[in-house]
Amino acid sequence: MKLLRYGAAGAEKPAALDGQGDIRDLSDHIPDVSGDELNPESLIRLSQIDLNNLPKIDHDVRIGPCVGNVGKMICVGLNYADHAAEAGMDVPPEPVLFFKATSAIVGPNDDVRIPKGSQKTDWEVELGVVIGRDARYVDEDDAMNYVAGYCVVNDLSERAFQIERSGQWVKGKSADTFGPIGPWLVTKDEIPNPQNLHMWLEVDGQRYQDGSTRTMVYGVAHLVHYISQFMSLQPGDVISTGTPPGVGMGHNPPVYLREGQVMDLGIEGLGKQSQMAKAWDA
Amino acid sequence: MKLLRYGAAGAEKPAALDGQGDIRDLSDHIPDVSGDELNPESLIRLSQIDLNNLPKIDHDVRIGPCVGNVGKMICVGLNYADHAAEAGMDVPPEPVLFFKATSAIVGPNDDVRIPKGSQKTDWEVELGVVIGRDARYVDEDDAMNYVAGYCVVNDLSERAFQIERSGQWVKGKSADTFGPIGPWLVTKDEIPNPQNLHMWLEVDGQRYQDGSTRTMVYGVAHLVHYISQFMSLQPGDVISTGTPPGVGMGHNPPVYLREGQVMDLGIEGLGKQSQMAKAWDA
Repeated sequence: MKLLRYGAAGAEKPAALDGQGDIRDLSDHIPDVSGDELNPESLIRLSQIDLNNLPKIDHDVRIGPCVGNVGKMICVGLNYADHAAEAGMDVPPEPVLFFKATSAIVGPNDDVRIPKGSQKTDWEVELGVVIGRDARYVDEDDAMNYVAGYCVVNDLSERAFQIERSGQWVKGKSADTFGPIGPWLVTKDEIPNPQNLHMWLEVDGQRYQDGSTRTMVYGVAHLVHYISQFMSLQPGDVISTGTPPGVGMGHNPPVYLREGQVMDLGIEGLGKQSQMAKAWDA
Repeated sequence: MKLLRYGAAGAEKPAALDGQGDIRDLSDHIPDVSGDELNPESLIRLSQIDLNNLPKIDHDVRIGPCVGNVGKMICVGLNYADHAAEAGMDVPPEPVLFFKATSAIVGPNDDVRIPKGSQKTDWEVELGVVIGRDARYVDEDDAMNYVAGYCVVNDLSERAFQIERSGQWVKGKSADTFGPIGPWLVTKDEIPNPQNLHMWLEVDGQRYQDGSTRTMVYGVAHLVHYISQFMSLQPGDVISTGTPPGVGMGHNPPVYLREGQVMDLGIEGLGKQSQMAKAWDA
């Protein structure tokens, strides 16, 4: 299943994509695509609905973040060996975790706002993992049972805020619009192997990132297990699993996002995003 | 006003403390003490209610976290010069920010669970600042207009997870029960000067922390201004403003929390907390 949310920001309605790629409204079945509706039983119930009987929504509607009311967004740093190298850092001996403010989350095609004073706004295409069940001290063998599905994430990052402003990366990860997620929450039955997905990102048509989740250092199951040793996970939480090489900071000289540029990005089986960069007050 | 939430975890009801120290149920007036009810207009409306006409609640009821549905909990590191010294670190040239998972938030007197594998669970009494209005690029002069009130926070910290496990402090700050907040959300009209409040913390009756918000490096107004440059703040967000000296890690040799110990802590005008430390699976 491909679940999504459509409509005005803050007032999104739940929907699913049917076999023809049409958007079908799910409002009569669930109040939202959010934690309460992502447990295995709820997903089975949803999968049994005949989408052909549901209202068809215009294709040009705004697509919102694919999960509503995200409780926390946990990001994994330096989780691709080649990206660690371009960032001038070693692959860490265990996963590096940081948070992105949930207030940064936006729809997949919403404008991205370059923060006030920013000179180094950068992109990162990442595989997002959406949690479906409460997870706490989960074994790696059992970890996939806590995953509801996957989505595309653009983990936007202001490199000066992240690295040059007195420690802790959250400062460069949390600006409004720095967390496009979606377009779809693709349930895990559609992605039998999350560790072999092509992923890419272009700025104004130039391909900067062209990688695969195959080269992830710590895979999805390990990350769910690992994170659950430090905090509990709730349905609707999103884990962003790190980015492959090709971020702007990794270029020599570095290349950063400018107003008016367009980012296009996608992951095999999970759909595409497209964001225009605008000034913070545009 | 002293606002609070009482009842079973996850099903708390809103209340206020009356002039006699009795708990008065506010369920007929607001659905919860949470972001939607913390804007200036809503607080004025609440302040006009005659609490004597509201149901009186038993004193032995469980007190929940003083704010429900917290969107984010932003913590400030090394914000007392003496504490930075005991942690072996310099006062940073600008505030250090990190997040605590909102899933760590509990009531002020709930048990604290020492995480699986933890050897270094530590305490930190802190002044919590509760946001009342959307804040984005706020001037320092205007910053206090975005504050709804204050509360006591115990910013529990697992020092090995925080410092010895591959970077980013969030890993040591986010275990379940690591964020007691309350007992009351004290509206800012009752605290004319948040920069002169006595604060203390005892473990099994021995006083470890005995400080004042007077020695904070970056004060409340500056922090609201500063944080709003990096992310937007929403009503119900909580800023925990750092801890004075006396944490367990600062002792020589270090002293950490053990099962069965009791932490008592408080801040002048904001009430007291008391937590028993238990094993993660007790």
